[in-house]
Amino acid sequence: MFKTSGYAAFDPRSPLGPFEFERRDLQPTDVRIEILYCGVCHTDIHQVRNEWGESVYPIVPGHEIVGRVVGVGTEVKKYQAGDLVGVGCLVDSCRYCEDCEDDLEQFCPHAVFTYNSLDKHTGKVTYGGYSREIVVEERFVLCISDKFAAPEKLAAVAPLLCAGITTYSPLRHWNVGKGDKVGIVGLGGLGHMGVKWAHAFGAHTVLFTTSPNKKEDALRLGADEVVVSRNEEEMKKHVRSFDFILNTVAAPNDQNPLLALLKRDGVLCLVGVPDHPHPPIHASALVLYRRSLAGSLIGGLKETQEMLDFSAEHDIVSDIELIAMPKINQAYERMLKSDVKYRFVIDMATLGA
Amino acid sequence: MFKTSGYAAFDPRSPLGPFEFERRDLQPTDVRIEILYCGVCHTDIHQVRNEWGESVYPIVPGHEIVGRVVGVGTEVKKYQAGDLVGVGCLVDSCRYCEDCEDDLEQFCPHAVFTYNSLDKHTGKVTYGGYSREIVVEERFVLCISDKFAAPEKLAAVAPLLCAGITTYSPLRHWNVGKGDKVGIVGLGGLGHMGVKWAHAFGAHTVLFTTSPNKKEDALRLGADEVVVSRNEEEMKKHVRSFDFILNTVAAPNDQNPLLALLKRDGVLCLVGVPDHPHPPIHASALVLYRRSLAGSLIGGLKETQEMLDFSAEHDIVSDIELIAMPKINQAYERMLKSDVKYRFVIDMATLGA
Repeated sequence: MFKTSGYAAFDPRSPLGPFEFERRDLQPTDVRIEILYCGVCHTDIHQVRNEWGESVYPIVPGHEIVGRVVGVGTEVKKYQAGDLVGVGCLVDSCRYCEDCEDDLEQFCPHAVFTYNSLDKHTGKVTYGGYSREIVVEERFVLCISDKFAAPEKLAAVAPLLCAGITTYSPLRHWNVGKGDKVGIVGLGGLGHMGVKWAHAFGAHTVLFTTSPNKKEDALRLGADEVVVSRNEEEMKKHVRSFDFILNTVAAPNDQNPLLALLKRDGVLCLVGVPDHPHPPIHASALVLYRRSLAGSLIGGLKETQEMLDFSAEHDIVSDIELIAMPKINQAYERMLKSDVKYRFVIDMATLGA
Repeated sequence: MFKTSGYAAFDPRSPLGPFEFERRDLQPTDVRIEILYCGVCHTDIHQVRNEWGESVYPIVPGHEIVGRVVGVGTEVKKYQAGDLVGVGCLVDSCRYCEDCEDDLEQFCPHAVFTYNSLDKHTGKVTYGGYSREIVVEERFVLCISDKFAAPEKLAAVAPLLCAGITTYSPLRHWNVGKGDKVGIVGLGGLGHMGVKWAHAFGAHTVLFTTSPNKKEDALRLGADEVVVSRNEEEMKKHVRSFDFILNTVAAPNDQNPLLALLKRDGVLCLVGVPDHPHPPIHASALVLYRRSLAGSLIGGLKETQEMLDFSAEHDIVSDIELIAMPKINQAYERMLKSDVKYRFVIDMATLGA
C-alpha cells in the first residue's frame, strides 16, 4: 500500500475536505495513474449526501478521471509510463458472466464501481478520482488520444468518461443516425453531450428544455431545433414524429407528453435515476403506437473506448468550467441550481493548494 | 341499405337488448357476411359502459367475428359465397400512410374500428358483430381454413380475431421462440392465448397469476411453470431470468416486480389499457439492466391472416363457453368476476330466439 491524498465526504451533511488514505501497490495487471483532471457528476452529490442510502464514509467521489500513467504491473501490455489514460465508472467486474462476455461490464452483477464499492483486492471500499493517484486494472483503463494532449482539451475529455458514455451508448444501441429525428431532454452535463452525439451521428436533433434562454446555446452545440417543453402548442407540433428521445433529466418528470411525440415503434430512453419515481405512465401511450420506455446505464469498456476514439476523430469534448479542488462544495451548490455550462472539472494540480 | 338485426347498448347503464338497424348495400369491393359466432371482448364492456368516454349510442359491440360469405361485390377477388371468413377489430384504414404500407393498419391515424367508429361509406357509426350480418371491404376480411369448419371449432376461432392477435403480435414482434424464457401475466381471454402461442413458438413459458387455483389449467394450456405473483419468495427465484413478459392484465397493476424479473435488454409488454394508470415505474428498474416497458395493439391484417394460418396448421383455438345472445348481460357480469374459461362466444343462431 502507498499513501495518497484526496478530498472526501465524511458524512452526508458536512462539506467535503482533504483526506489522506492508501491505495494498493501495483499488482501484475495494474496501472498506476497520476490524476490530472476529474469531472464532477451528479452521482457524486447523490452519493456524498447518501441519497441512494448506500454510502460508506469517508467517500472519495469522482468517476470521470483523466491522467497519465506513472507505472505498470509486470503483465500490463497496453500501457506504459507517460500514456494519457482515462477511468470511468467501473474498475472491475467478474469477467466471466454473459454481460462481461458481451462487453457490457456495467451490467455484471459483480461490477465494482470506481468509488463507494467493494475493492476485491483490498477488501475495502474503492476511492474515486478526487485524488492525486489511482491504481486500476489494465482492462478498466481507457486509452486517450494524443490529439487531446493540450491541457484545456484534456480537462474537457474527463466528462466523456461518464456523461459522455451515458449518452453515447443509448444513441448507438438504438441505432440513431441519418434520417432519424431525435430528441434530447434537458441541457445539462448529460444533455449537452447528447446533443453533440446526435448531431455528429447525423440525426435531426431537437433539444427539449424548460428554459427558453438555453435556445441559443443548444443551437451552437448542434441542435437543429429547440422546443420549450412547457409550451403545449410547441409540443403538439411534434406529436408522433420522433424516432428516439433521450431523457437526461435526473429529477422526477412526466414521461407521458414525451411518449406522445414518438412515432410508432419509437423509444423514450431514461438515463437518470431520480430519488422519487416519475409520475405514472399511461399504458395507452405505449399500447397505441407500440412505443417503448427504456433505460440505459453508462456503457461497457469496449464501447467507452469506441466513444473516446470517435471523440478524437471528430474533436468532440465536453463544455466545461475548470475549478480548483477546494471549490468543490460551491460547485455542488451551483450544480443543484443548474448553474454550470455544462460540467465542472477539477484541476487536480490544485489538490494541495 | 338493407335491414338487419342485432343486440345493442342504448346507454351506459341499461342492459343490452334487441336492435334493428341498416347496413350498407354491397359496394364493388365489399363482402357481405352472415355472422355465425362472435366473441365477447373486455373492450365491449368498456365501450358499452362508456369507460373510455367516447361511446356513441346505440352501440352494437363485437369484433371477434366468424361467419360465412353470402355475397361479394363486383371487384372482390379473394372470396366467394360460402367461404368461411373472419373480421377483427378493423374494417377500414387510409391505405396510403406509412403504417398501412407496412401492413400495420392498426396504427393508421384513419383506422376505422369494427364498432363505435365512423363508417366512411355511410357517414354513420359502425356496428359490430353482435348481429346477423355485416358488410366489410375485402381487404379487412380474413380467410378461415376449412379445417375449422366444424361448429365447435369455428366458434372457438372467433376469439383469435382480437384476443388471439393481441397476444400473437407482440410475441412475434419481439421474436419469442426456442431458447427464450417467456412470462404471460394473467390467465384470462388474452392470457390463455398468450400461453398457447408462447408454448407453440417453443419458448419456456411461465404463467403469472394471482390465483393459485389456476395452476393446473395453465399447465394443461401449455405453461411450463406457474408463479403466484403475490408470493414474493417465488418471484425472487426468477429475478433477471426472463427474455420477455407479456402483461395481459387490464386492471391497474404494479409493473416494477415484473420488470425486476427481466434479463438485461428484456422487454415487458402491455396489451391492456386500464381506466386508471398503473403505479409509477421506478426508473432504476429500466436503467440498471437496459430493460424496456413497451405496448402492443392487436395486429395488422397481414399478421392476423398469418396467425389464422398458423392456428389452422397447429390446431390452436381459444377455450370458450358458447352462449345464447340473450345471455350477454349475465356474461358481462361473469367476465367482471373472471368467471369464464376463457372467452364467451355468442352463437348468432340464437339472435332471434
